Amino acid sequence: MNNRGTNLDTVRRHNLSRILGLVHRDGAVSRSTLTRQTGLNRSTVAALVGELAALRLVVEAEPDGARTVGRPSPVVRPHPDCVAFAVNPEQDAITVGIVRMNGEVVAQVRHDLDEPLGVAETVRVTAELMAGLRAGLPASAVVAGVGVAVPGLVRAPDGLVRLAPHLGWVDEPVASLLADATGYPARAANDASLGALAEHIFGAGREVRDLIYLNGGASGIGGGVIANGMPLGGVGGYAGEFGHNLVTAPDGPDQPSTGGALEDEVNRSRLLDLLGLKSADPAQLERALLDSMDPAVRTEVVRQLGILSIALRNAINVLNPELVVLGGFLGSIYAVDPALLDRLVEGQTLAASFEEVRIVRATLGPDLLLIGAAELAFEPLIDDPAGVAGAVQA
Amino acid sequence: MNNRGTNLDTVRRHNLSRILGLVHRDGAVSRSTLTRQTGLNRSTVAALVGELAALRLVVEAEPDGARTVGRPSPVVRPHPDCVAFAVNPEQDAITVGIVRMNGEVVAQVRHDLDEPLGVAETVRVTAELMAGLRAGLPASAVVAGVGVAVPGLVRAPDGLVRLAPHLGWVDEPVASLLADATGYPARAANDASLGALAEHIFGAGREVRDLIYLNGGASGIGGGVIANGMPLGGVGGYAGEFGHNLVTAPDGPDQPSTGGALEDEVNRSRLLDLLGLKSADPAQLERALLDSMDPAVRTEVVRQLGILSIALRNAINVLNPELVVLGGFLGSIYAVDPALLDRLVEGQTLAASFEEVRIVRATLGPDLLLIGAAELAFEPLIDDPAGVAGAVQA
Repeated sequence: MNNRGTNLDTVRRHNLSRILGLVHRDGAVSRSTLTRQTGLNRSTVAALVGELAALRLVVEAEPDGARTVGRPSPVVRPHPDCVAFAVNPEQDAITVGIVRMNGEVVAQVRHDLDEPLGVAETVRVTAELMAGLRAGLPASAVVAGVGVAVPGLVRAPDGLVRLAPHLGWVDEPVASLLADATGYPARAANDASLGALAEHIFGAGREVRDLIYLNGGASGIGGGVIANGMPLGGVGGYAGEFGHNLVTAPDGPDQPSTGGALEDEVNRSRLLDLLGLKSADPAQLERALLDSMDPAVRTEVVRQLGILSIALRNAINVLNPELVVLGGFLGSIYAVDPALLDRLVEGQTLAASFEEVRIVRATLGPDLLLIGAAELAFEPLIDDPAGVAGAVQA
Repeated sequence: MNNRGTNLDTVRRHNLSRILGLVHRDGAVSRSTLTRQTGLNRSTVAALVGELAALRLVVEAEPDGARTVGRPSPVVRPHPDCVAFAVNPEQDAITVGIVRMNGEVVAQVRHDLDEPLGVAETVRVTAELMAGLRAGLPASAVVAGVGVAVPGLVRAPDGLVRLAPHLGWVDEPVASLLADATGYPARAANDASLGALAEHIFGAGREVRDLIYLNGGASGIGGGVIANGMPLGGVGGYAGEFGHNLVTAPDGPDQPSTGGALEDEVNRSRLLDLLGLKSADPAQLERALLDSMDPAVRTEVVRQLGILSIALRNAINVLNPELVVLGGFLGSIYAVDPALLDRLVEGQTLAASFEEVRIVRATLGPDLLLIGAAELAFEPLIDDPAGVAGAVQA
């Protein structure tokens, strides 16, 4: 609830938001559960659900089997025609997807690139891909907007990409350009922060209010933090840059430390080199790591797990998370010897902090970033369903 | 607003909380400002302020000088008789204070100790000190409760002290024992986390939504994080333990790192030793550091600033704060050469993150922990003024 007055219309809009938020999180909730969870009375919940259904944001259906005595309570789900566009520009491809409010990616197209595109070209190609996907949607679809997962630092309020080194972008207003080009509201954020959000809502971190997510990819290590159940963005939206943290000795007492960053030490290229691979998709790399009998590979994995344990020690001391979610090749090196990483982290963290934390692998797989980008687009709709859906459909 | 139903009574209680929260933050707010900030209409604000005044939580007064045309709007302030008890058990003393809702410490008493007391004795002494202070309050005073700032890890939900090494406490339920002994609701939390909260509400971090606070004391380095305008506690309440972070090289590739923690490297005893001091209060230590002409002292300060810069680099990368607040001897070594620390941090952080952050010294001085502890006691009252104040006065 923001600074507007708490009058009856504000209360109704707030309650619409609470109900849509619960349906969004759970995927399927009975009206009686909504009544219990909101504390509102049954007729109010029925009216609010009816309003959300009229906006094509939810659907109601009788439950499959009546397991309770008496009339079963209808089940409320996100409307399948309520979708968001999700965009992920990368060095070698632009991927655009259509994602439902339950996190289901219903369509996606990948546009391969020989080299990264500038922002104007990226927007042009993305708008074309979106138009193609839009043609497959029913005319009555509610499109919440566009979310963009950017491999770089993105300023939170306006989606300005401050720096995306692998795309060669500096201070590029990708969100506003995309909104202008497509007519949809558009937002952008850092890809790993959106991965954290996706794992929090639909993946390994469901129901977890405090988690950290670290993802290892070809271009380094990104991350995101969920604190108090909300994404931790920081003042500019740049939080979660675990990859740049120093995990080894500084260069000198009065010199800035430039080497020894986590992503230089825990590094996919070092693994590929030792495995004799020029390239590998995530599954191939993991298979190779698990199958390798080469002691040098094992030594390097152990070294990287040791360094990773320092990054986790520091993050756990500062953030006291319930869950550490490892994605990309970080999940793969963890899979080689999970007990080793657990033991190394246990040996370095305060007992009280360690006993509440679990280290797990990410569960959402390759759709992760599209799901996270779509969440960004759904957020304003869930915050004010009547206001935003009314505007989208007007 | 929690999961209870949003009916008119809930709306009223929520609005009471919003208004008391604004008065608490600002210290003095005109009714017209409250009207503008809440979006409620004037008569509603007048009624809500009247209700808070009847509960003895706020007072209204005509403004000192009428600077605007027409009838001046009354100014609302925290009621001077609405107070909390603040407790800070330390190795060498127990300090108990009475703090107003505007952060003013109106009375305090320090009970010196030859050695730290066990929890039962601490509770007994604290209850006696509280009774003495209570006698000085008017009979009509509203006592929100007791807040305890503990030098150790404190479990958030119930105030169980998991570990306070300098007190020798392990798994001690200090909050519930104190509530039983005094009849007041009692809560406990880590001292540095409460310091962060105090600086956020009344000190260097006013109006700042994302800050980190690091405090250097005789027993090490503690810290706290404010994110999205709220204290970041983590799942158990143990967040902010910057002092245990590793800032130098690990012991070996597959060994947990035990040495090289921030608080071992950036350390008050090392400074005292070089200065030839056996002990010093914070002001004496700072004076000695600033006055010293000994190159060895300068070298050590530079070394500690270098290590501190690594800790700040890592914290800024992960949390993207707007403000870094340095307390205790960390503020003192910063004062020796602020430009050096600024330069070292700038050299290590991402440009986008660095340009939004300022490094400053804590401003609340020796009352910091009492103010923070009192905030802990005021929180439930501000969350539900009618419910809590009614219960306290019943």
